[in-house]
Amino acid sequence: MFSEKHKNAGVTYAKGFKAAGVRAGIKKSGNLDLAMIYTEREATVAGVFTQNLVAAAPVQVSKNVVATGSAHAIVANAGCANACTGTQGQRDAEKMASLAAAELNCKSDDVIVASTGVIGVNLPMDKVESGIKNLVKELSTEGSVNAGKAIITTDTYSKACATEIEIGGKEVRFGAIAKGSGMIHPNMATMLCFITTDLNIDKNLLQGALSEIVQVTFNMVTVDNDTSTNDMVIILANGAAENPKITEKNSDYDKFYSTLKEMCTELAKKIASDGEGASKFLTINVHGAKTFADAKTVGMAVANSPLVKTAFFGQDPNWGRTICAVGYSGVKIVPEKTVIKFGGISVFANGVGANFDKDALDKVMAQRDIVIDIELGLGEVSATVWSCDFSYEYVKINGEYHT
Amino acid sequence: MFSEKHKNAGVTYAKGFKAAGVRAGIKKSGNLDLAMIYTEREATVAGVFTQNLVAAAPVQVSKNVVATGSAHAIVANAGCANACTGTQGQRDAEKMASLAAAELNCKSDDVIVASTGVIGVNLPMDKVESGIKNLVKELSTEGSVNAGKAIITTDTYSKACATEIEIGGKEVRFGAIAKGSGMIHPNMATMLCFITTDLNIDKNLLQGALSEIVQVTFNMVTVDNDTSTNDMVIILANGAAENPKITEKNSDYDKFYSTLKEMCTELAKKIASDGEGASKFLTINVHGAKTFADAKTVGMAVANSPLVKTAFFGQDPNWGRTICAVGYSGVKIVPEKTVIKFGGISVFANGVGANFDKDALDKVMAQRDIVIDIELGLGEVSATVWSCDFSYEYVKINGEYHT
Repeated sequence: MFSEKHKNAGVTYAKGFKAAGVRAGIKKSGNLDLAMIYTEREATVAGVFTQNLVAAAPVQVSKNVVATGSAHAIVANAGCANACTGTQGQRDAEKMASLAAAELNCKSDDVIVASTGVIGVNLPMDKVESGIKNLVKELSTEGSVNAGKAIITTDTYSKACATEIEIGGKEVRFGAIAKGSGMIHPNMATMLCFITTDLNIDKNLLQGALSEIVQVTFNMVTVDNDTSTNDMVIILANGAAENPKITEKNSDYDKFYSTLKEMCTELAKKIASDGEGASKFLTINVHGAKTFADAKTVGMAVANSPLVKTAFFGQDPNWGRTICAVGYSGVKIVPEKTVIKFGGISVFANGVGANFDKDALDKVMAQRDIVIDIELGLGEVSATVWSCDFSYEYVKINGEYHT
Repeated sequence: MFSEKHKNAGVTYAKGFKAAGVRAGIKKSGNLDLAMIYTEREATVAGVFTQNLVAAAPVQVSKNVVATGSAHAIVANAGCANACTGTQGQRDAEKMASLAAAELNCKSDDVIVASTGVIGVNLPMDKVESGIKNLVKELSTEGSVNAGKAIITTDTYSKACATEIEIGGKEVRFGAIAKGSGMIHPNMATMLCFITTDLNIDKNLLQGALSEIVQVTFNMVTVDNDTSTNDMVIILANGAAENPKITEKNSDYDKFYSTLKEMCTELAKKIASDGEGASKFLTINVHGAKTFADAKTVGMAVANSPLVKTAFFGQDPNWGRTICAVGYSGVKIVPEKTVIKFGGISVFANGVGANFDKDALDKVMAQRDIVIDIELGLGEVSATVWSCDFSYEYVKINGEYHT
C-alpha cells in the first residue's frame, strides 16, 4: 500500500530530509553506487546491526554514532562491503564519515556509514571522496530514487515506501529505502534499510520500538540462511513535524509503533520476494506453537531447506519435504497433530498425506506468491517467516559473482 | 583403500553372509529396487536411526529389531520411503518383515526393514511380496553388487567397501554398502548403510562402538542440511570368524573399533562426494576449537552456506563467504585469530585477506577435491566435516524430481 502511494518519495517524504545517489565508480557496472541521506535539523537516531562476529568496519563506526543518540546524515555505498579489511578498513569507514561531515558542516560522529558488496576489498577512497562531494551538490527532496538505486547490489529493483499519520494534530511522515538480496538471513537487522521520519520522539522509545519491530519483520526473512557481515537498519527522526514530543508509551506511541511495524513488514517481504534468483515468494505461517521461538524455528527450517526451496521452484507440491523439515527443526512437534496447507489446501494431516484436489493445488503451485500454513497443535503462538525459492538463477548469480 | 581391494564384495565379504538385489517394480525407472542381506547364523545387531521426529515406518519397526539384540536379515527398498504413511505404512513395514521371515524361515523380529525414496507414498505391497520371493531365490555370496544398486536413488553409483583384520588368531572380515545422496544432513545416522562382519562380539560393545563412530563419520556429512526421515545405519556381526568373543574394551576391541571407524569414514566421504549434483568434494577441517561441538558447528555453518557452496561450484576463491559463515555460526570466534586456508594456501589471516599466489590458488579451485582448513586459535579440539558444492544440477535434480 505504501509504495504505490508515494512511490518515489522514500526517505525524502518526511519533512526536512534530502537525499542523493551518484556514480562514484565503485561498482564495476558503472551504476549508481554512493548514496546520502541528510537532515539539517538534528535527528534522533536508532539502529540495529548484524550479530555476525565478523562485522564490517562501517558497522562498528555506525554503532558509535547510534550510541550518541543523534545524527545528521547517512552515507552508504554498494559494490564493496569494507568487511574483513582490518585497520585500513576501519580508517576508511571513519574517513567516509569525516569527509561527509566536512562537506555537510557537521561532526563526524553525526554521520552513519554503511557499505554492501564484495567482502575483503578495500574502499577506493579517492572515488569515495569525489563521490561525497558530488552527493552534497546533488542533495534534494527528489533524491530518494537515486539514493535507493545506489545502495542495491543483486536486487532487481530498489525497495522504497512512505506513509503518514496524524499525531498531536500534526501530520507526521515516514519513508524508507532498503536493499536485499543475497546473504540474507538477518539477525537483528537486514542488509541495509534506512528509515526517515519527521516525528518528534524520545531516543530510547525510538530505539526500543525499532529493536522490537526488527525481531518480527526483518529478522523473519531468509533467502539463503547466510547472515551478512554488513546488516544495518537505521531510523532518523528529526522532529520537523513539530508534534508534541512522544516521551511515553501512550496512544501516539502506539500509532507510531504500528506504522513503523507495517513499513518494516512491507520492506521485509519485498526483500524476500526479490531474493537472488527468486521465482516464488513464500509466506510461511506457523500456528499453534508453544513459544514464538519454536514457531520461528519451524518456519526457518522449512524456509531454509534447499529441498523445499527447489520443490517450489519446480512447482511440485512435495509436502513430504516440508513435513521432513518440520520434523528435523529441533522443535518437539507431533506429526499426528501437524497440519500443512499450501495456498489454503490441506496437503498433510493426521500423520499422512491429505486427499487434495490435484488441479486446484497445481494452480496454487503455479502462482508467484504462495502461502504455507503449518499448524502444530501444541499451543497458541504464531510466527510468520518470509522466503523465496531456490532456482538455477541463484546458482548462476552466486557461482558467477566473482571476487 | 577398502573399495579397490574388494570392490565387489561389500556385505558378502564377511563369512556367512549372502545378498541379492532384484527389480520389484517400485522405481519408475525399472532399475534394481529391492535388496536383501542374510546370515543363516544369527547375528548380533546394532543400529543408529534418524533423529527426525517424522521418522518413517521402517525406522520404527527396525528399532524394535535392534532392541532384541539379534537379527538374521535386512530387506530394503528404494523408490518409496514409506514415510508419512500412517498406520497403513506401519502395517506395510511389518508385513515386509514378516514376508521375508516366512521365506527365510526366521522370526519377523529377526528382519530389519528399510526404505528410501519419495515421502508420503504407500509401498506397492504386491510388488514387494513377489520381489521378496525372488530375492530369496537370488541370495548368493556374489549378491552384494546388486543389493548395493537396489538401495540407491539419485546416487550416481553404489557405495561399498570391505576389509579384514586378525583377531585372536582368526581372520575377521567386514563389508558394507551405503547410499546417499540428497536430504543428507544425518543426525545419528545417514540415509542407509548396512555393515556386515563375521566378528564375534558382545551386543553392547557393538552398539556402543557404532553409536560413537557415527558421531564422527556419518554425522559429519552434509549435502543440503536436510535430515532425512529414513536415515539408518545397521551392523550385523554373525561370529562366523570364530574369534574368541570380544566382551571388553581390550586390544582386540580397539582393532575392531579403528577398522569400523575407517570404514564408516570412507563411506561418509563417498556420500558427501556423490552429493546430488556435486562437482566438488569439500573436506572442512576446523582446528583450535574449545570443544568438538564448537568445531562441528563452525564446519557445518561453512558446509551448509549456499553462498560458500555456489562459490566453490564457480571455482571462485571467495574466502569472504567462508569467514562470513564462520562469523555467524554461533560460536564465539575471534576474527583476528582465525586463519583460513584453501588447499593449504592461506586466504584469510589477521582479520584481512592474505596475500596469496593467485595462479596457485586457481589450481586448487579447479580440483574436484578441495580441503578447507579453518584454524580458530581458541583451543585444542578439531573436527572434520565433509560436504560438496551446490550446482545447477542440484536444482535440476530437486526441482524436477516430482512427487
